[in-house]
Amino acid sequence: MTREFFKPRLIAPGPVEVPPAVLEAMARPVPHHRAPEFVTTFTSARVRLAEVFAVPGDDVMILTGSGTAGFEAALVTSVRSAGSVLALQAGKFGERWGDMAARLGHRVERLSSPAGVDFDRDALTAKLRAMPDLSAVTLVHSETSTGALHDVRAIAELVRRERPDALVLVDAVTSLASAELRPREWGLDAVVSGSQKGVMTPPGLAFVWLSERAWEAKVERGSYYLDLQRERAAQAQGQTAYTPAVSLVAGLDVALGMLLAEGLERVWRRRGALNAALLAAGAALGMRQLAAHPSPAVAALVVPDGVSAPAVVRAALARGATLAGGQDELKPTLLRPSLLGYSDRYDAVAVAQLLEDALSDVAPATPRGVAVAAALRALEERS
Amino acid sequence: MTREFFKPRLIAPGPVEVPPAVLEAMARPVPHHRAPEFVTTFTSARVRLAEVFAVPGDDVMILTGSGTAGFEAALVTSVRSAGSVLALQAGKFGERWGDMAARLGHRVERLSSPAGVDFDRDALTAKLRAMPDLSAVTLVHSETSTGALHDVRAIAELVRRERPDALVLVDAVTSLASAELRPREWGLDAVVSGSQKGVMTPPGLAFVWLSERAWEAKVERGSYYLDLQRERAAQAQGQTAYTPAVSLVAGLDVALGMLLAEGLERVWRRRGALNAALLAAGAALGMRQLAAHPSPAVAALVVPDGVSAPAVVRAALARGATLAGGQDELKPTLLRPSLLGYSDRYDAVAVAQLLEDALSDVAPATPRGVAVAAALRALEERS
Repeated sequence: MTREFFKPRLIAPGPVEVPPAVLEAMARPVPHHRAPEFVTTFTSARVRLAEVFAVPGDDVMILTGSGTAGFEAALVTSVRSAGSVLALQAGKFGERWGDMAARLGHRVERLSSPAGVDFDRDALTAKLRAMPDLSAVTLVHSETSTGALHDVRAIAELVRRERPDALVLVDAVTSLASAELRPREWGLDAVVSGSQKGVMTPPGLAFVWLSERAWEAKVERGSYYLDLQRERAAQAQGQTAYTPAVSLVAGLDVALGMLLAEGLERVWRRRGALNAALLAAGAALGMRQLAAHPSPAVAALVVPDGVSAPAVVRAALARGATLAGGQDELKPTLLRPSLLGYSDRYDAVAVAQLLEDALSDVAPATPRGVAVAAALRALEERS
Repeated sequence: MTREFFKPRLIAPGPVEVPPAVLEAMARPVPHHRAPEFVTTFTSARVRLAEVFAVPGDDVMILTGSGTAGFEAALVTSVRSAGSVLALQAGKFGERWGDMAARLGHRVERLSSPAGVDFDRDALTAKLRAMPDLSAVTLVHSETSTGALHDVRAIAELVRRERPDALVLVDAVTSLASAELRPREWGLDAVVSGSQKGVMTPPGLAFVWLSERAWEAKVERGSYYLDLQRERAAQAQGQTAYTPAVSLVAGLDVALGMLLAEGLERVWRRRGALNAALLAAGAALGMRQLAAHPSPAVAALVVPDGVSAPAVVRAALARGATLAGGQDELKPTLLRPSLLGYSDRYDAVAVAQLLEDALSDVAPATPRGVAVAAALRALEERS
């Protein structure tokens, strides 16, 4: 048997496939970060980013670091030392923000929900009432580890009603530019994301938007690098407090231009439809979706009983594809294909077939010729 | 008069000119950060980086962030809360590390020296004796703001003699791969650098090496993102704790391979010679060097009396070049050309002529036909 040729493909909820024009922008000679040429690029990226955050005209900080750095920057800039923090956790990232707040010296309470399940409103109300001095609530919009989209809008409303002084800090790492997100209208206080997800740029940049009352905290102690007050003063001048990843910013500006040319609401619809197509393909193959309310950023699919998810990941790799699997305790059973990057209808078709082929490699009883048809039907329903 | 054509040139102590092969590596499709392909690249870069740090086989952490993030990571990982820190400052970056330690909640004493002047040994000894509970000393090897190379080896020796328990934390942002630096032999405890300097990669990555006793501090409170214990565990597996800037790592690996192919000690000699050529060109043009002991990373040149350094910077820009000037109070009088990046003998010649032309544009009495000859003589002396 001759070995078939396969192209490398990245089918994961970040890093994602990056448009060639973004890679090309990154490969240009490096500008000095104080030179007028870069100030223009940086300012353009900041203006565009505010539109993608649905807060046009507002300050959105661009930091060099991962999404985790961005979340820490939001916490250290807006929550005074030894505060009281409620961490809502229904997956790996929700847990991380609680761990981070504890390490930063805050008193942390946690409200947990099973993987993929939204938070019980009564339990949340009870928690909020039991924490009279609550400083902040941390939560994840699109929990990438479970594929769930949590109802940030409703949770923020509840927090505002019960504890109007508490800040609502939101991890939007994979929801930005994939799910509807309206920081001002929903009364959020921090929204954090990163470059390697919906804005289809390589990893290395974090983004943070803060509400006016979060900016007013003026925390005096803590991280120097992650203190956004200094960044805000510099970024208002088209500068950064410290040397930024200029090549990534050049790529980001191009990617944001592409998203805005398409239109933010159309991007949300496109990504919702593409993810629905992956979920439909999975269902046709006997896989169930883990999340009650799926995020458009990732299709978290539980493999059929008796099948090993890591074996499917290996079968996909033999077909050229880096297919994301589950993390930690979800590893044996979960696949997490995603079309969050530079993806269209035909990528959904290709990935549906690839899922079918890889699952068949591992489980020969897998139905054949069903995944693409199911994906196309899902796209049709959303069109 | 027809307008002459000029190529854009970057003549600054970071970001520096990056080899085309590095830019090309960054423009490749983005790998997943957990995929075997990237693990191989990352591991290769770490091994090579340890050689460039002159600590072959040791752990050098690669973080996504600026050099400032790297220095904060060294501090938060190795100095327990409410420590006692002595900041040696003779320029902008030395001051920054004192400010950072204060913001992190340490008690900070400072020993200052005028711009470009090394620290008085007697004053340092007195300071050390007056701080019996000293936790750490922060200092800068190559102070990029003044062009001075501080005698880290002698200072570390003095600290070890007077306060053997105090850690010596060194900013080697612009000295790495430009000046002789031997962390183990010199008894250092932290060495920090960044991607956009001697290792000629775009900005966005920070590097941190710690001594074994610095690792043993096991600090329990403080930054989550900048805690290197978690990074160390992950990086030993070829992973990172958080999604890294994979494209920059790909570029870094190529750049490090180029430096090691040349040989670390040859790189030190080359950069020393190129910088001596810039200083000699400056001297021939009536400019004096600011630093008593110049760093090979940057030629800090004080313009002749009556000349405005910012005007020379503007004249250079009209000739295509982004020429670094002085920062803060040194801005009116200082130029800081640098050949720290992808530079050879002919770049030294070109930059010498450019300095002569730009200075002449502003100060018509500038001697002509002298800069290149002076640069070549300096190169000859060092060959």
